[in-house]
Amino acid sequence: MKHYFDEIHYIDILDANAGDHGYPFATNFNPEINIREITANGSYIENGKWVETEPLELKQVYDFPEIGPKDIYLLHHEELESLALNIKGIKRIRFWMTFSEKYLTHLKVLENVGMTSIKPIDYEGKQIVPLQFLKEILPDPASLGARTKGKTNIGCIMQGVKKGKPLTYYVYNVCDHEECYKEVGSQAISYTTGVPAMIGAMMVMTGKWKKPGVNNIEEFDPDPFMEALNQWGLPWKESFSPTLLEE
Amino acid sequence: MKHYFDEIHYIDILDANAGDHGYPFATNFNPEINIREITANGSYIENGKWVETEPLELKQVYDFPEIGPKDIYLLHHEELESLALNIKGIKRIRFWMTFSEKYLTHLKVLENVGMTSIKPIDYEGKQIVPLQFLKEILPDPASLGARTKGKTNIGCIMQGVKKGKPLTYYVYNVCDHEECYKEVGSQAISYTTGVPAMIGAMMVMTGKWKKPGVNNIEEFDPDPFMEALNQWGLPWKESFSPTLLEE
Repeated sequence: MKHYFDEIHYIDILDANAGDHGYPFATNFNPEINIREITANGSYIENGKWVETEPLELKQVYDFPEIGPKDIYLLHHEELESLALNIKGIKRIRFWMTFSEKYLTHLKVLENVGMTSIKPIDYEGKQIVPLQFLKEILPDPASLGARTKGKTNIGCIMQGVKKGKPLTYYVYNVCDHEECYKEVGSQAISYTTGVPAMIGAMMVMTGKWKKPGVNNIEEFDPDPFMEALNQWGLPWKESFSPTLLEE
Repeated sequence: MKHYFDEIHYIDILDANAGDHGYPFATNFNPEINIREITANGSYIENGKWVETEPLELKQVYDFPEIGPKDIYLLHHEELESLALNIKGIKRIRFWMTFSEKYLTHLKVLENVGMTSIKPIDYEGKQIVPLQFLKEILPDPASLGARTKGKTNIGCIMQGVKKGKPLTYYVYNVCDHEECYKEVGSQAISYTTGVPAMIGAMMVMTGKWKKPGVNNIEEFDPDPFMEALNQWGLPWKESFSPTLLEE
């Protein structure tokens, strides 16, 4: 908005992980969180209203720069809530995340057989929660960092107008799991989650972001934040002619 | 051999279960047995020698009478061992069993995550074998009978010669899970396993099968056995022009 647009009409937020830890199946977090993600209804905002979908109902294939075509699924994600209020002219805003067919099959099977249940069963006189037992036999998420190869691609595609002319803009970061691990001892999922939060804190601490009241990130000056991303390990690229998602 | 063939050159034994118990996944036996079945190498006899395959390496689709097309996989099965010795002229004998894509996917995932392991893990101070825990959360095999619908089709396709002329013969039984349950309180897997064994015992007890030494079933007169199958719930049908399997 500050540099390119008078109004932004459409935003697609794209969160892609093309990393491979070499296990048939493992979760980056507590598996309970992963399971909630894929079993919750999806939602997006269109014309000022929430539209709800079945879990993983909306799927597309998107050909990402540097990591190639991936299956993406529409999820609810909390930043939609404030962006829909703060971006002038917005007509539709959606969030998409990659899941592989293999990942979804594994989670579905584990759900089918009851291994994701949080209801304890009696096993030889001991109360055991199947999901807790599953967590015990799956690889420890912290152990994945050292063995994850490949890249993430996280970005936003925006369509809008400037001085009456239509404009499309894609800004994204590509992050390499192995390089992150070399630098901080964690792979890119942790890195891309942690570094922006660190920069946000830096913006407040250095006084570059300072307003009375409670504000969301998109209500502050983007320039020092975007510069810091380039400086602190999450450099971004931009394109004015990206492939668009389907409607 | 008694009625139709001078020599039988090719035998394919086909064991198909088109039953549906309505669960996403459950096993008819102890899951350990099911897992051994699909993870063991397959084998068949050709020109007097055992040919070994990778687990589930050989797959075909066969369109069964009354139950339709099913995926069939070549397995080792113990009757091959004596049939290969006792059937005159035999060149190749194979055994095939149906597994659905869904069933195999579930077993594969459970194997991938370690739930089929028989090595105990320490869970809060208790030694637990993952496969034993899995057995606890899966539906009890005995509970499946009352809810299984559909049919089995078990039979043999034989190709050979009679008086120098080529001949093909298919004999099979179709058994209905619900009718079996009504009659004996178990579904057709138990029924088709138990009734032939009962008839074999009857043949011995009534003196219809009587020979010195140890003999296999195919070394006795087939007529009273085949008549008893018709009488005791496993009537068979025959065809002289079945669809053949691929080579």
